[in-house]
Amino acid sequence: MTTVDEKIWHLLHCPLFSGVSEEELKDLENITVMIKLQPQERILSAHREERAIWLIKEGLVSLTYGDADGKDATVMLLSSGDLFGALEESGELEYGENVVALKPTVLCRMTQQQMESLLRKHPEMAYRVTKFSWHRIARLQRRLADIMTKSVRERLATLLLNLATEYGNEQEAGIRSLNLTITHDDLARLVGSSREMVSKVMGSFRELGWIRSSRKTIEILDLASLEEVANTVGI
Amino acid sequence: MTTVDEKIWHLLHCPLFSGVSEEELKDLENITVMIKLQPQERILSAHREERAIWLIKEGLVSLTYGDADGKDATVMLLSSGDLFGALEESGELEYGENVVALKPTVLCRMTQQQMESLLRKHPEMAYRVTKFSWHRIARLQRRLADIMTKSVRERLATLLLNLATEYGNEQEAGIRSLNLTITHDDLARLVGSSREMVSKVMGSFRELGWIRSSRKTIEILDLASLEEVANTVGI
Repeated sequence: MTTVDEKIWHLLHCPLFSGVSEEELKDLENITVMIKLQPQERILSAHREERAIWLIKEGLVSLTYGDADGKDATVMLLSSGDLFGALEESGELEYGENVVALKPTVLCRMTQQQMESLLRKHPEMAYRVTKFSWHRIARLQRRLADIMTKSVRERLATLLLNLATEYGNEQEAGIRSLNLTITHDDLARLVGSSREMVSKVMGSFRELGWIRSSRKTIEILDLASLEEVANTVGI
Repeated sequence: MTTVDEKIWHLLHCPLFSGVSEEELKDLENITVMIKLQPQERILSAHREERAIWLIKEGLVSLTYGDADGKDATVMLLSSGDLFGALEESGELEYGENVVALKPTVLCRMTQQQMESLLRKHPEMAYRVTKFSWHRIARLQRRLADIMTKSVRERLATLLLNLATEYGNEQEAGIRSLNLTITHDDLARLVGSSREMVSKVMGSFRELGWIRSSRKTIEILDLASLEEVANTVGI
């Protein structure tokens, strides 16, 4: 496939653009820029200053907010079909935003103006973006409630299960690999805790025989036990 | 004003519907139901089951998620111009949602189908709802980052400042009253901590002479000191 063909293929297979005519997809192909990231690669902040909208075609990225003192939190993992960027003036920026690929990722970028004229031209698409946005709001609100009410142990069990079932794969019967290179620091940023606390809880999961971990990835040996922790009131 | 006049007045003064013709506002007036809540009144969950969309005309409500074990967290305070409800299938509901008025509040309700046909008919409105939604996403993400990286003391200082400046009023020179009846339990749900911890931190703010509180409301005597805590790292 040429790059143009590949780009159109990605646009065609994006639920956001379903129902858009081939001619319009050609238009889209002209205004969007396709970007590929390898794991650990990040989007440079320069791109964020030009008020771009990003659409994830495939892959997985973390969206992390860092404050001036170096404390950071991963507010969301975003994957295929998710949008991020500056649709709206964000006010004063107390946090720096960082987008890092966790898997090989294909992104498509357009400017805010391009997105705006696209949505004005296609009411169907505007409605679909609104529904996507409401889905994101529901996810964020659930995540907030989890972080505000659940223990680190429960949050970590929930996270490992999500990563394993949504983005991982089964390697041997009953064993799911996250298939991600993810450090305890990354996990701490995702559950809103310290690396020390995460290492302690991961150690206890390992001792119980629920997980197996190496420097390269984490494998889940006992989904059922983790599920029990995730749904149980904790410590 | 008759109820109908009042409803049209509220619709006219809602930024979401700016640019909508008078005829269409009449249509809107027919499909929306206006509801008034007094402080402490809540929206009955029955209404949420009919997949309604709610628009806040004026006032202030808290959106609280509670789990089966009685632990709850206020994920968001919503005020004039904010939307909530079921634009999108929310999947299995792990949490019950609770909407409680903190001030006298006027809400307008329509069904999901009504909202959908409204947005399909008015691309401008769909784009505006999308922008509102993105603004909400940005607010939620900042709130998540705050809760994941800041101490309870910092979070409480930030919350008191927001409540005082956004919804409070100046009663004597330099003194802002929250003008809300809000308990330590409510504050704990808002910052994601325990009532005990909140009472301890509120006690320290009181001893420092930064706040004054009674059973009816909280007054901020020293905005500058609270601002310093809100922006400072550490316990």
